Amino acid sequence: MTLSEEAARAYELDRRHVFHSWSAQATLTPTVLTAAQGCYVWDGEGNRLLDFSSMMVNTNIGHQHPKVVAAIQEQAATLCTVAPSFVNAARSEAARLISERTPGDLDMIFFTNGGADAVEHAVRMARLHTGRYKVLSRYRSYHGGTETAVNLTGDPRRWPNDHGNTGTVHFFGPFLYRSEFHATDEAQETERALAHLERTIEMEGPATIAAIILEPVPGTAGIMVPTREYLRGVRALCDKHGIVFIADEVMAGFGRTGKWFAIDNFDVVPDLMTFAKGVNSGYVPLGGVAINAAIAATFAHRPYPGGLTYSGHPLATAAAVATINVMAQERIVENAAEIGAKVIGPGLRELAQRHRSIGEVRGLGVFWAVELVRDRATREPLAPYGGTSPAMTEVVAACRAGGILPFVNFNRLHVVPPCVITEAEAKEGLAILDQALTVADAHTV
Amino acid sequence: MTLSEEAARAYELDRRHVFHSWSAQATLTPTVLTAAQGCYVWDGEGNRLLDFSSMMVNTNIGHQHPKVVAAIQEQAATLCTVAPSFVNAARSEAARLISERTPGDLDMIFFTNGGADAVEHAVRMARLHTGRYKVLSRYRSYHGGTETAVNLTGDPRRWPNDHGNTGTVHFFGPFLYRSEFHATDEAQETERALAHLERTIEMEGPATIAAIILEPVPGTAGIMVPTREYLRGVRALCDKHGIVFIADEVMAGFGRTGKWFAIDNFDVVPDLMTFAKGVNSGYVPLGGVAINAAIAATFAHRPYPGGLTYSGHPLATAAAVATINVMAQERIVENAAEIGAKVIGPGLRELAQRHRSIGEVRGLGVFWAVELVRDRATREPLAPYGGTSPAMTEVVAACRAGGILPFVNFNRLHVVPPCVITEAEAKEGLAILDQALTVADAHTV
Repeated sequence: MTLSEEAARAYELDRRHVFHSWSAQATLTPTVLTAAQGCYVWDGEGNRLLDFSSMMVNTNIGHQHPKVVAAIQEQAATLCTVAPSFVNAARSEAARLISERTPGDLDMIFFTNGGADAVEHAVRMARLHTGRYKVLSRYRSYHGGTETAVNLTGDPRRWPNDHGNTGTVHFFGPFLYRSEFHATDEAQETERALAHLERTIEMEGPATIAAIILEPVPGTAGIMVPTREYLRGVRALCDKHGIVFIADEVMAGFGRTGKWFAIDNFDVVPDLMTFAKGVNSGYVPLGGVAINAAIAATFAHRPYPGGLTYSGHPLATAAAVATINVMAQERIVENAAEIGAKVIGPGLRELAQRHRSIGEVRGLGVFWAVELVRDRATREPLAPYGGTSPAMTEVVAACRAGGILPFVNFNRLHVVPPCVITEAEAKEGLAILDQALTVADAHTV
Repeated sequence: MTLSEEAARAYELDRRHVFHSWSAQATLTPTVLTAAQGCYVWDGEGNRLLDFSSMMVNTNIGHQHPKVVAAIQEQAATLCTVAPSFVNAARSEAARLISERTPGDLDMIFFTNGGADAVEHAVRMARLHTGRYKVLSRYRSYHGGTETAVNLTGDPRRWPNDHGNTGTVHFFGPFLYRSEFHATDEAQETERALAHLERTIEMEGPATIAAIILEPVPGTAGIMVPTREYLRGVRALCDKHGIVFIADEVMAGFGRTGKWFAIDNFDVVPDLMTFAKGVNSGYVPLGGVAINAAIAATFAHRPYPGGLTYSGHPLATAAAVATINVMAQERIVENAAEIGAKVIGPGLRELAQRHRSIGEVRGLGVFWAVELVRDRATREPLAPYGGTSPAMTEVVAACRAGGILPFVNFNRLHVVPPCVITEAEAKEGLAILDQALTVADAHTV
């Protein structure tokens, strides 16, 4: 197959003028995407692919939902942009709809352009609220690409950006399959991970710690679903030491886990919550911080020293209003929960029985990780931490050849389709995965 | 007058749920904006206001340009979002149109969501390209709200965010009206400012300095137009010491100064250029970094360690394509130059002759500052650096009552209307300013 004329021109201009994220530019041969609908995208050769990645795990309502497209078109015709100092109806309504869904008293919304700046601002709020500087985050995490956010990140993308001066400290979180704590069951992993966090706080000095930031369910780092007891334990440690608990819901929020927010799975209320992606499925760039009453009060009479031109952008927030309403009307969050529980979870577990390359499957909602290993006994990953391998490259190629866009991180395939995925679509994707995993199996010992 | 029912609801929800930029939240009584067209906006009471602020100096093509609105609607119907790893036609074309206009060999475009993250990434590129860490910027500057960007900023918004660890160093730039160098004319100011920068580089250690970042014409900090010799001198110092020259064109770029980029007024080619705002007039959040060949080559085979979900967002870049094409077709950059030279500049100078509160007017294109003083002899500002005053509050209220939205910073009124402003609109605004300045005059000695 060859590229259409338009796709060929887009490709040629891309290679000449577009600098891509997280990449060695000369090594890229990126795929052209020309169209998308629901859970499918079309490439420049006319191939239809099932989007098992939701792009960057952001198109929770699928591509090109007609009601959201219409809302964007309508807002574009009305008022694209206003400065953040004014009041705008779309922004107000988005803030209302979000705060209606956030847990506890997180009822004030500071809008940003995406997840990274949401994290930057949440950290700033926590630092000024507490008068402390250090922020703790876990290894195996991702919090964004700007300076503070990437230094909070617990993966190798931090390394080239780490100059040891951003006041970030990393600890190990619960991850039974690759336990740092030599635990043999979830209860023990939880208990030991909490003890480790408590010891870390003690060693760092509680009075120096502004915040602990956690993805309630870590995303790109591996979808390690913690126990309710773990997150409750973190909450208790924060309360004990006056530390702000920031839940980073950028990837896991807005339906991904089968609840509006991942933290809702654990009945825990954080102090600050960052969001982006799913808030409007990325149709227009948008992120934000939900702020509890105590932290909002800190900035009631003292100016908050942060802001941005597009904070609460009308077009972006109008897309959020439409997205949230559509998700509620069409029971999209419930669909994510059901498809996860009835189709994807059981389907992946069934694949694990037949494919020796699968070390573990874990997840909830439409948020699943398949841990590929060379050896089930040693759990040696199919690609090293922070890298890739010929085996993984082959698996990805098999997924693409079979007709799915996979989401891949090191040795893991993530199954993270839109929350609107149907049972038939999920099964279609799992069947393609089944084929691709035979390629992985060939690389096992 | 009272708010419409819709405006009243937007206001009420805003006060309950929206956390605003750079503000003490409990002290705000923000204006509702319900509609906008060209250079005008309408508030929630139905008043029409002439937008002398271009919102946050971003709506360079005015509000609701029909061709850009149509392009957004069309792209929304086609494809709102793709992940940054793919190729997309809108992104490719935007990159082509931008790189066609950037000076020299700045032909690779890394797209971000706004100006702050553009600065974050430009600094990262400079640091990794040089292997050095420190970045120099000037006092009286603004570079964005995230951690690195706000620490580069040379205004009081930096202070609450400054923990002395971001590797930023500030120096004084040329500003004859309030010369740091005891200069009496522009040539002397230029010469002394360059000597001061050279001495600062020497004292900091040239081999420790990754970049110098400058707004070619500082924006919010006061629109101090430098001489050509100054920017050429900075370029020469960067060349001499292997320092990356970053031109921050977020506010001054895309027509504001009567050229596509502010740096074009000085025939200087930077190594990196940050942009946002005017690139698509803020209709959809977008920013970016234009990268020269040498720095792009650094990341040809070594991965660039930075990225973001919405990098090169189709909807945002489609708006940029339409905006740039409209600006070219409708000679909007030329209009900005002409209105500045023939109407705003002469008009403000004429006001300065009649209003003793005007200490200086300066600018170019549609980028003008009116420096208000209590005393022309001592140049005592009408509000202190970093603050406001009852006098300035009265002046702003008079502008609003007269029917213009002013842009205000400390003791300055900035006249920064859309680049599409007509002679009649500019004169209408200047007449209102004339009235408001009588209020300022009453506060002079």
